[in-house]
This record gives sequence, C-alpha cells and structure tokens, in this order.
Amino acid sequence: KINPARLWDSLMEMAKIGPGVAGGNNRQTVTDADGEGRALFQSWCEAAGMSMGVDTMGNMFATRAGTDPDALPVYIGSHLDTQPTGGKYDGVLGVLGGLEAVRTMNDLGIKTKHPIVVTNWTNEEGTRFAPAMLASGVFTGRHTQEWAYGLTDAEGKTFGDELKRIGWVGDETVGARKMHAMFELHIEQGPILEAEGRDIGVVTHGQGLRWIECTVTGKDSHTGSTPMNMRKNAGRGLALITELVHEIAMANQPGAVGAIGHIDVYPNSRNVIPGKVVFTVDIRSHLPEKLHAMQAELMERAPKLCEEIGVTFEAKISGQFEPPAFNETLVGAVRSAAERLGYSHMDIISGAGHDACWINDVAPTAMIMCPCVDGLSHNEAEDISPEWAAAGTDVLLHAVLETAQI
Amino acid sequence: KINPARLWDSLMEMAKIGPGVAGGNNRQTVTDADGEGRALFQSWCEAAGMSMGVDTMGNMFATRAGTDPDALPVYIGSHLDTQPTGGKYDGVLGVLGGLEAVRTMNDLGIKTKHPIVVTNWTNEEGTRFAPAMLASGVFTGRHTQEWAYGLTDAEGKTFGDELKRIGWVGDETVGARKMHAMFELHIEQGPILEAEGRDIGVVTHGQGLRWIECTVTGKDSHTGSTPMNMRKNAGRGLALITELVHEIAMANQPGAVGAIGHIDVYPNSRNVIPGKVVFTVDIRSHLPEKLHAMQAELMERAPKLCEEIGVTFEAKISGQFEPPAFNETLVGAVRSAAERLGYSHMDIISGAGHDACWINDVAPTAMIMCPCVDGLSHNEAEDISPEWAAAGTDVLLHAVLETAQI
Ligand SMILES: NC(=O)NCCC(=O)O
Ligand SMILES: NC(=O)NCCC(=O)O
Repeated sequence: KINPARLWDSLMEMAKIGPGVAGGNNRQTVTDADGEGRALFQSWCEAAGMSMGVDTMGNMFATRAGTDPDALPVYIGSHLDTQPTGGKYDGVLGVLGGLEAVRTMNDLGIKTKHPIVVTNWTNEEGTRFAPAMLASGVFTGRHTQEWAYGLTDAEGKTFGDELKRIGWVGDETVGARKMHAMFELHIEQGPILEAEGRDIGVVTHGQGLRWIECTVTGKDSHTGSTPMNMRKNAGRGLALITELVHEIAMANQPGAVGAIGHIDVYPNSRNVIPGKVVFTVDIRSHLPEKLHAMQAELMERAPKLCEEIGVTFEAKISGQFEPPAFNETLVGAVRSAAERLGYSHMDIISGAGHDACWINDVAPTAMIMCPCVDGLSHNEAEDISPEWAAAGTDVLLHAVLETAQI
Repeated sequence: KINPARLWDSLMEMAKIGPGVAGGNNRQTVTDADGEGRALFQSWCEAAGMSMGVDTMGNMFATRAGTDPDALPVYIGSHLDTQPTGGKYDGVLGVLGGLEAVRTMNDLGIKTKHPIVVTNWTNEEGTRFAPAMLASGVFTGRHTQEWAYGLTDAEGKTFGDELKRIGWVGDETVGARKMHAMFELHIEQGPILEAEGRDIGVVTHGQGLRWIECTVTGKDSHTGSTPMNMRKNAGRGLALITELVHEIAMANQPGAVGAIGHIDVYPNSRNVIPGKVVFTVDIRSHLPEKLHAMQAELMERAPKLCEEIGVTFEAKISGQFEPPAFNETLVGAVRSAAERLGYSHMDIISGAGHDACWINDVAPTAMIMCPCVDGLSHNEAEDISPEWAAAGTDVLLHAVLETAQI
C-alpha cells in the first residue's frame, strides 16, 4: 500500500502554489503559478530517481526505468493545471498519485519490467485556452500543434507564447512516445460514488460529447414600447431550447445528460427585449446511438421552436468526440486491484472528459475514480478525504504493477 | 409653423458631440461630451434671448420671459443625454424642439402671458447611473439629491462627483420651481405610429412599471458528471420564468407588456450547470389593475415553478411606479393642435418612462410623440424623418402657445 500521509502532504504542498481566493487554487495553465507547480513536481520526480522529459507542448514525462530495455512504458498521468476558481485535487491527485506510486515502489524496492512514466498533461482545463485536454489532444493527433500554439486567452496572449514565456517548451516531438498502457486516477467530479458509498469507481467508458454553440436572433427593442405581438424576443428562444435540451436528455435516460452552461444576452439591458442570445448546449452519452439521436432531435426541433416565436436559430459544433470505451484488460486490472485490496467499488462512466479519454485513441487506457464531497468540482470548495485519495492511489499502484509486470 | 430646416440643422449639430461607433451617439450623462452638449445648448438658448438657470442636479432651465410677471412658466423639456450606443433623437428632439418653438416665436414676434422655459433634464437614460429619469425624479421628490449624488457608475465614480467635475452643479434648489404646465415631445421608441401611418401620437397615459430583480439559486455542478436526477439547474428556473412572464403579459392583452432583459448566469461556463441566475423582469401596463394582477401572479407562480425543479426563487423590486394619466386639458390641447395643423394623429400610451411621467406628479403635463423608423431606439441606427420631427414640433408649438396664452 502507498504512504497516505506522504501523498496528502504533497497534495497540500502543491496547493500552496497558485492559491485561490476561497481555499482552492488558481493555477491556470501556462501561468507563472503553473511554471512553479511544474518545477516543484520536477524536483520531486528527480528526488524519486526519475528523469524528466518534456515535449513541445510542455507535457512532462518523468521516467522510472524498467528492467527490460525493449519494453514500452506504462504511463500514469493527469494534469496539474486548475480552473480559475478550482479545487486542490482535480487533476493533481492523478499526477501526485502517480508520483506516490513510484515512491512506494522505491520504498519497497520493486522493479518492473516496463518503465513507469508519470505524466503532467498541459492545459487539461481549457478555461484559459479552450478547448479542454489540449495537449493530450495534440499528442494523439486530434489537434495540430500549430493550431494549439495560436490559441488566444481573453487578453489576446497566445498559448505558444505563454508556454515559451514560462520556459516549458521541451525538445521532444509531441506524440512521438509509444505507450504500453496509460492509467489516469481522477476525482469523480460527480455525486454517484459518494451517494453509493463506494471507495472506487472502475471507469468502463467515457461519455461522448457535443458542444453546440447556438445563436438565437430576434430584434432588440424597448420592453415598454414594443407591443407583445410585434416582438422578436430571442430570450424566449433561449427559454424554449433550455427546456428542449432538458426534455431530450430526460427522454434518453438512463445514460444521457444535457444542459446549457454559458449564456450571453445582447444587449443585456433591463428594459430591452433581447435581440440576440448566444449560448452553448452540452449533451453527452456513453452510448453512441443516444448521443447521435439527441443531437439529431435538438437540431431538428430547435429551429422549429424558434420559428414559431419569430426568431431564428443557428448552431455550430464547437466540440465533439465519440464515447471512449476503455481497454478491457486494464479495466479488469483496476477492478481486481480494488477487489484484492478490499475497497468497495462499482463500475462507473466518466461523465467528464479527461486526458485518458483521448490517450485511449492511441494506447490501451483505463481510469480510476475516487469520490469527492457532494460531487463538487471546478469550485474552490472541492474536497476529498485522505482515505479516498489513499484508496484510489493504492488501486492505481496495484493496477500499474500488474500491467508493468514485476 | 416652425422652421424644419433649422430644427434639423440643430439636431445634426448636436449629434456631432459624443459621436457613437455606428452613426449614432454616445453622449452619456455627466461625461465630458454631455458637458459639451450642454454648453452648445446654452449658447443657442442665449442667442435666442433666453436666460439660463441651473439647479443642483444640473437640470437646465432656459427662460423666455412672459408678459405677466405673476404667471407661472410653461415648461418644454426632455433630455440631451444618450445611451452608450444611442440615437440622435431620443430626448434630443424634445429639447431642441422646445428651442425651435421659442426661435419660431421670436421670428414671428409672438409674446406669451406665461414665460416659456426650455428644460434639459439630467440623466434621463439611467444607463451610466441607474435609475432612469434621475434628476426629474429628484425634482419631483421621488428620490433625494443625497442619494442621487452617491450613485456610482461601473468605474465607481459617483454621480455627484462627475456632475461637479463637468461643471454643471447649479445654484438653484432642485424642485423649487413651480410650473403652470409641462410638455414633452419625444420619439415613440415603438412601432405603432409608423405601422398605423400617423404623424402624431397624442399621449394620454404612461405605463406603470415594475422592475423585479430575480435570483434563482440551484447548485453549480459539472454538466458531464452530474446525473439528470441530481441536478439543481438554475438555468431552467430562468427558462420557466421567461415563459411565465410572456404568458402573464399575453393573458393581460391588450394593455400590458413584459419581458426579461438583463441576465447574469453563474458561473457561466460551457460545461457547468448554472448554479445561480440573476435576471430582471420588466412588466408594465397603463391600467393599474392589470399591473397589480401581473405582479401578483408572477410573485405567486414563479416560486412554485422553481420549487418544482428543485431551485429557489427570490425577488426584489428595483423600480416601480404607477401609471401616470396625463392632464386632460393639455392632452386636449395637443390633440386639437394636431387636428388644426392637419396632421394625422392617434391617441397613444407611452410605453417607456419619460421625465414627463414624473413631472406629472407635480404639474399638469402632456406628451407628444412622433414616429421612429421600425420602432427602433436605444440603438445607434435609431432614425426619424425631418417631416416627422417638424410635425411633432409644430404640434408642440401650438399646444404650448394655447397653454401659455398669446
Ligand atoms: N474533467 C473535466 O472537467 N474536463 C473538461 C471537459 C469536460 O467538460 O468534460
Ligand atoms: N424612454 C426610456 O427609455 N426611459 C427609460 C425607462 C424605461 O424603460 O421606460
């Protein structure tokens, strides 16, 4: 078993870098704080006898050598960047859990046939530079590096310039590494494990996703002086589509979710009927047929609803991926590790996207989830117990050891 | 009849001050541009033989003497301030129309028993410093001057400091003036007159108004990883109340309007279910019983709708006034002036709030409306024809002359 106190100490130490305003963290990607967090992680890895490689997207790879020079490494990874008002565990647990697994192997003098590589993927959060899982996406060929470098934040700074500024453009070609397997430990970011009283979520699938950027256009006019029958109220379009998204997700239960998260109203003035509303629909399912059916129904009914109230509907896809099914052997290794260690567990679907969902394209991949209090994440109040962190990392260690072959 | 070319020239001259970005104006209240506009107006008034008084709220009163030293003045007024992306006519026509009426009296050597006072009311728009009709509200005792001085703009500057900075704190006590009557000429800011093909709107009533600031609180959580049955989606509360406001206004036709104009979503992130939505309901009617019934129904049904979907509803009134009924004698003078001058006209209700709605509390008041293209206002593309402006100003002149007694 891992050393729970050492793991927790490292989590707390990392959380001192880029403190938030309410007890959490603001260590957004390729900021000075991110640079500091990376340096701390590197120093810990080197102290644990690992050597650090960095690729041109700033992805960090700390290697513990294996006994077979020809064996491909087993990767353990997640991300050290946080939301602007993020928690201390989202991503960080997966990276420092990997480090703790290696430290435990060192303690116990365990040698593995396959090398172990602990990875920090750059810009998983995607808040400062959308999209999420940026650098793992470039690693697997979903995006080009050129495109990623050109992404701009709200101040107009580019991702490439900022990565260079903080000094973390490495010399490895992104995506050149080959993997025997990849494991990601992550907090659930949802309420199921806690509600079910389970220590471990054995992640069998991820959800596929569609982000649909919608624009409803009516005509902005004075709320007081425009008669009801002469209005084109884009706010009503938003209202009808909010309920439509909910209805479609409910009709596809179980195994589907959907909501509208981001809304911009124009001109957004107290006494002006909205002339335009721009908003994003997020629909997901781990079942391809449900995902496709939801998308098709939305795209068919939303324009009609808008037409009925005299406004127009336009949509464009701003993010999409099909549901990943994780590697059965590795998922089995996770499940049997939890079993062996006596942790209560259940199969679960990853509701959120993770670097693992994309690495799954290019290597056998699996995920381990641990509960988080109230399902709260992307929030400074995000919380987990040291016991949950330890259980997840124990399972990670055992699944990795089985895969990397002692 | 007035001199249409001179009126139009003055409108165009004023529009050069505080130009907008799209052909309209940005001459927000108590900015440098507002100061420039005031100085130009003052110079025109003085050139027309009027003397300028200014009160402690910056309201400007340009007086043309009457023949009876004991007679109270007839006021003509509106506002020179604009929205941030405002038009060239909203408010300005009412002030410069008053000036043109005086210029015409000068041309024709007309003397009136009652003095004529052309007024520029400070901060009618209320965008930079809410609420709207601020200085006429202080004039009539709806607000205290102390409270108005302390209002802050988005940069934290106070109204009082800014009024002082631009040099327009006058020495008259606000509200001390007594009025024989007050007329306001204004563009309709709605589509009715144009649709009905009428030159003149004879404004019989204003609408009463309720601005209700609503907060729907749910719980922000991850859109992907929160199951549908464990969500508290505040965005659905907004959706249901958007439709409720529409339904209630429709049920009270004719003579009622309602919409939600301003919406703030928290945290407003693509993949986070809204935990809180703050928005403003604007409901209006010229019939007190309809206004009260709409408010009561909203306040009864909105919390229930929210409760059904697991979110909470809170509301507070951020603006309210009862429907003003304008003075029948003055309204009659407007109607018969239009008749006499051969302009097509119809009785109309002012959908928007105007300084006249509040002056109506303290003096006999009436309003004259002229059409505006497409009903568009609070928009740089706001437009009127020179003929509409001239017709409205002719009617203003004649109604004022009848009231001020030649
Ligand atoms: N884990 C996580 O929140 N990833 C961001 C992409 C998503 O919304 O699933
Ligand atoms: N005329 C005008 O737009 N006044 C502002 C207050 C209102 O919304 O009616």
